[in-house]
Amino acid sequence: MTEGTTRIEAFSDGVFAIAITLLVLEIRLQHAGAEGSLLAGLLALWPYYFAFALSFFVILVTWIAHHDVIRLVEVTSHPVQLANGFVLFYVTFIPFPTAVLAAHLTGPEITTAVTFYCATFVVGSGAFNVLVATIARCPGVTWRPSGESAAAFASRSRYMSPQR
Amino acid sequence: MTEGTTRIEAFSDGVFAIAITLLVLEIRLQHAGAEGSLLAGLLALWPYYFAFALSFFVILVTWIAHHDVIRLVEVTSHPVQLANGFVLFYVTFIPFPTAVLAAHLTGPEITTAVTFYCATFVVGSGAFNVLVATIARCPGVTWRPSGESAAAFASRSRYMSPQR
Amino acid sequence: MTEGTTRIEAFSDGVFAIAITLLVLEIRLQHAGAEGSLLAGLLALWPYYFAFALSFFVILVTWIAHHDVIRLVEVTSHPVQLANGFVLFYVTFIPFPTAVLAAHLTGPEITTAVTFYCATFVVGSGAFNVLVATIARCPGVTWRPSGESAAAFASRSRYMSPQR
Amino acid sequence: MTEGTTRIEAFSDGVFAIAITLLVLEIRLQHAGAEGSLLAGLLALWPYYFAFALSFFVILVTWIAHHDVIRLVEVTSHPVQLANGFVLFYVTFIPFPTAVLAAHLTGPEITTAVTFYCATFVVGSGAFNVLVATIARCPGVTWRPSGESAAAFASRSRYMSPQR
Repeated sequence: MTEGTTRIEAFSDGVFAIAITLLVLEIRLQHAGAEGSLLAGLLALWPYYFAFALSFFVILVTWIAHHDVIRLVEVTSHPVQLANGFVLFYVTFIPFPTAVLAAHLTGPEITTAVTFYCATFVVGSGAFNVLVATIARCPGVTWRPSGESAAAFASRSRYMSPQR
Repeated sequence: MTEGTTRIEAFSDGVFAIAITLLVLEIRLQHAGAEGSLLAGLLALWPYYFAFALSFFVILVTWIAHHDVIRLVEVTSHPVQLANGFVLFYVTFIPFPTAVLAAHLTGPEITTAVTFYCATFVVGSGAFNVLVATIARCPGVTWRPSGESAAAFASRSRYMSPQR
Repeated sequence: MTEGTTRIEAFSDGVFAIAITLLVLEIRLQHAGAEGSLLAGLLALWPYYFAFALSFFVILVTWIAHHDVIRLVEVTSHPVQLANGFVLFYVTFIPFPTAVLAAHLTGPEITTAVTFYCATFVVGSGAFNVLVATIARCPGVTWRPSGESAAAFASRSRYMSPQR
Repeated sequence: MTEGTTRIEAFSDGVFAIAITLLVLEIRLQHAGAEGSLLAGLLALWPYYFAFALSFFVILVTWIAHHDVIRLVEVTSHPVQLANGFVLFYVTFIPFPTAVLAAHLTGPEITTAVTFYCATFVVGSGAFNVLVATIARCPGVTWRPSGESAAAFASRSRYMSPQR
């Protein structure tokens, strides 16, 4: 069973990759209104660029954290798969609050849009914590035992330091 | 030929990941109608959230079951690839009945929408059974022979128990 | 360099998986017209179901053939990557002729739609032949040498026979 | 830690595969206008075919280059993951300038559209250079040491020559 986490990683990577790429579908020239030149239209789309970039890097950082957490798992279990499913549930949902934020960033209801956007990430952090707790507590999941790996993990947890 | 099921798993994981992520594209503010505040609009979308969450977890559980079934296969054959294709056919179709369910959950034709939604999963269960039967009967497919793997499978089939 | 074809397979699997899943986005209730009951609407969508199923199985069979061809390659080269790119170009294009076919299957211009649909697959077959020829002729590509693998390939090429 | 770059490759392949496949969603019969026959409509879509083909091969060549660069990395670090994220940010953005180019290729504002399209790739080249520089300089990243690999890399860098 050397392929322990191959498929949960492949499936998760697929979901992260698709969610991060679907964000661009929200950037459309029609959102800029029809009056004015193309250049004015492209510039008027700045809330969409901003929301796209913000959500892109949130998903990217979530993916990096997910990458670091899942590599601690040697074999998957159903609880880990379900807890991972909750994290993916939150990741797939992100394009919707991103679209809401972009559409209302310059309007009168910006407070509601920002609250909805942030609430998504509060719930998402909760899902991520459930995943970490599931990995830590589940008796069927073993932590990589070798001293080198433990050292590597310690090195890894110093954020931004290179992993050897 | 150690890469026996690598690609059928990668392709299937891709299809599952995309189908599960496309569900979010059905959640749009326009569906809530234009009158009222943004908050009222977000709340009025509850049938879309409900259908999104329901189909998400159905696809997730199908993926977990698929994961458990395919890992029994050591080398793929064309019958397994075709039977797997039928399962993926059903998985890729799920976003459409989900959209139909969401759009009619509060309308007068809810019975038709729910019937259509459930019928999809009845057909899907049939496709999944064909896949399991194909894997079990195909002479070119060997079951993982070692006692440890068999024990692991027996352990695995006790649902929700950790897999060592 | 044991990972010779890992990434070309992963990238191709991703493109196949996405193209096959995007097909469902063309099935929309709006295409059925607004009059009549939901059931009548669902039934009136039959050209979309037909085109979806047809293109799904064409892409599935293309994926199976691609799977059989690429596993002959031990290490990739730029010509193989480019020839593979032409095959993927055709695969990603399939959702468009599928949509054209579905929209005109019951209309007066069915001949043009069917011709356009078939022309896509004629071009696609050409791209696939270029890929096979590139794999066969490129001096930097080695065919899997062992007798067992050759036997496995001979067995494999008897279509639908199990691959041991 | 043999799986050093498995997930960064899988995630990147997913993003490339999705971005390259989403391009086809911009080709729609509605863009051709409603008057005239289906054949005239299909022919009138030529700017969309052109932009689709152009962006497809730009992404394909970027993927081949990315493939050649990432295989030099043995273990990933957070700087490499972030620099790779910037490249993917540019790749996921490509469908939008492609749509702008296609919509204005026959209109009066073609200059603005072409400038916007080209500016995207100038920024993208910058992101790619940052990735290469990050891989080259990061102390936690080791270059594949064996003589054979170095020879393979030298051979590989002669563009279009087969990689043994």
